[in-house]
Amino acid sequence: MKLIFDINGGDNREEIILGALEASKEFNTDIILVGDEDFAKSVLEKNEYDRDRIEIVDAKENIENNEDPAFAIRRKKDSSIVVALKLLKENKDYAFISAGSTGALLAGGLFIVGRIKGVKRGVLPVYIPGLKSKTMVIDSGANMDTSPELLLQFANLGKIFLETQYKIENPRIGLLNIGLEEGKGNSLAKETYKLLKESDLNFCGNVESRDISNNDCDLVVCDGFAGNILLKGIEGTANFITKMLFNEVNKSDLDENVKHELFALMKSKLSQLDSNEVGGTLLLGIDGNIVKAHGSSNSVAIKNAAKYAIEINKNNVIDKIKERMGDEN
Amino acid sequence: MKLIFDINGGDNREEIILGALEASKEFNTDIILVGDEDFAKSVLEKNEYDRDRIEIVDAKENIENNEDPAFAIRRKKDSSIVVALKLLKENKDYAFISAGSTGALLAGGLFIVGRIKGVKRGVLPVYIPGLKSKTMVIDSGANMDTSPELLLQFANLGKIFLETQYKIENPRIGLLNIGLEEGKGNSLAKETYKLLKESDLNFCGNVESRDISNNDCDLVVCDGFAGNILLKGIEGTANFITKMLFNEVNKSDLDENVKHELFALMKSKLSQLDSNEVGGTLLLGIDGNIVKAHGSSNSVAIKNAAKYAIEINKNNVIDKIKERMGDEN
Repeated sequence: MKLIFDINGGDNREEIILGALEASKEFNTDIILVGDEDFAKSVLEKNEYDRDRIEIVDAKENIENNEDPAFAIRRKKDSSIVVALKLLKENKDYAFISAGSTGALLAGGLFIVGRIKGVKRGVLPVYIPGLKSKTMVIDSGANMDTSPELLLQFANLGKIFLETQYKIENPRIGLLNIGLEEGKGNSLAKETYKLLKESDLNFCGNVESRDISNNDCDLVVCDGFAGNILLKGIEGTANFITKMLFNEVNKSDLDENVKHELFALMKSKLSQLDSNEVGGTLLLGIDGNIVKAHGSSNSVAIKNAAKYAIEINKNNVIDKIKERMGDEN
Repeated sequence: MKLIFDINGGDNREEIILGALEASKEFNTDIILVGDEDFAKSVLEKNEYDRDRIEIVDAKENIENNEDPAFAIRRKKDSSIVVALKLLKENKDYAFISAGSTGALLAGGLFIVGRIKGVKRGVLPVYIPGLKSKTMVIDSGANMDTSPELLLQFANLGKIFLETQYKIENPRIGLLNIGLEEGKGNSLAKETYKLLKESDLNFCGNVESRDISNNDCDLVVCDGFAGNILLKGIEGTANFITKMLFNEVNKSDLDENVKHELFALMKSKLSQLDSNEVGGTLLLGIDGNIVKAHGSSNSVAIKNAAKYAIEINKNNVIDKIKERMGDEN
């Protein structure tokens, strides 16, 4: 396999190249940098790397977050995402890592690489850390306007993903809602509850967002709007609390050594809630290995996303989804 | 004025009575306990209180969280919420504090007390603490299926509330969304963006949930489903981080005295994110002062909710909303 990196997307383009170089070295893999060739060369010049393992494919354009994804995919033929996805389509054993526009990756994944037969929409799973383990949330931001039938399919996709990539058999599936009782929520949640209850899934009822970190279920299903609000809410709260506690400890009369010890401790624990540490998330439902990294990814996050993409290939996740989603339709 | 307390609702019924007694004493006010008279008497017997200031109105039933609110309001004539709301309707200068079913309070508020002319729906505002100050979120859980026109009205109600109760002139209003750019989000968010942009409100665009604690706007507007997911997500994350850091500090080799100092510091700061400390929230749009306290409220939370209700009466918030919502329709 080869790892393809989008070097035009994301907030820290140099960090992406550095992360790619580190991944190539650490995981002993060939990489293709897709994007502005001149920029790539200028970064490579400053670093040591194995010339035999690095390839650059030029692509001048970038799809911005504020562009209409479907329109941009059709129009920007020379964008890193379009060029990289065409490469992926021709080489299904490769994997593509991008910190660029989620919408463009998803739209491009569906239009260029294609969706898995039987799958109606691509989704973005994300892992939220908790007290005992972690809980996957699907969809974390790909699908804005959905339906009960779509949410049921997200649950099925998540189940297969958890079983193949994470070796969790018959995962417990909850529905994100504003209360525990059946009948709570908006019309989408109410109807989805019925479908999940009637399904063969290991449905454990409604889950409130405050209880996700208790890890009483393995997968929480929701539409991408609610999922994104939840995810960024967790991120914001973690940031807020970190800043608040750092300030408090700093202005306390604790010994300087104690302060340092505390800062190190807090930093190591709170980094679990930092999207950079998670690294990436697979776009689920597309017939190719596309890993979306956080827009603000640094080199560590990119390297972690690369590691994740390699594991997905090793576990044949895409093939397993193809087999089983074919069965269900 | 008198304060009416619902002593059948909520998780800690004894705490509600204790909070009411403390409020009566501290704020020098008459109170009416509405609910199970025998239970009220058994709690009162164990405590000291001013007999002239406390009245009990018997109501045997309670409306549970899992009941259909509108149905329960019509059927359970002897529930604490129905009996209390009838009292409030006859005495518009009273205020009612309940830790019971939010849905029942809202439905009962609208059916029994009545809505303010020009107001289409009752809403639940809530304050989220931040780095610089705090930000109000409307709606935090009352309205599940909404429309752009409703969200615009939530923004108008919030503006009046912020101006009258919190003395914030021309508050900055943001729209909860999954991205900053216009055109992001689900169809509700996209259409609401247009309405807010065209309105006379001080609209500052989309706000992502991770940025709310930066306090770049005074009010964030959303439907009650997203608002509730956000709110409980913040609560859950704060709980999770607190537990995690307590564990880490506890098992560290720090001096026991330092540990104690740290626990105290963390507890005092993180309690800001604890719903018990906020105390309550006004049901906005109803022609009466109904303060919803958190279901798990202890006596401190109930006393704080009472204090809040007294301030709302003092600021003539309901009358101001009546004046100004009348103007807008």
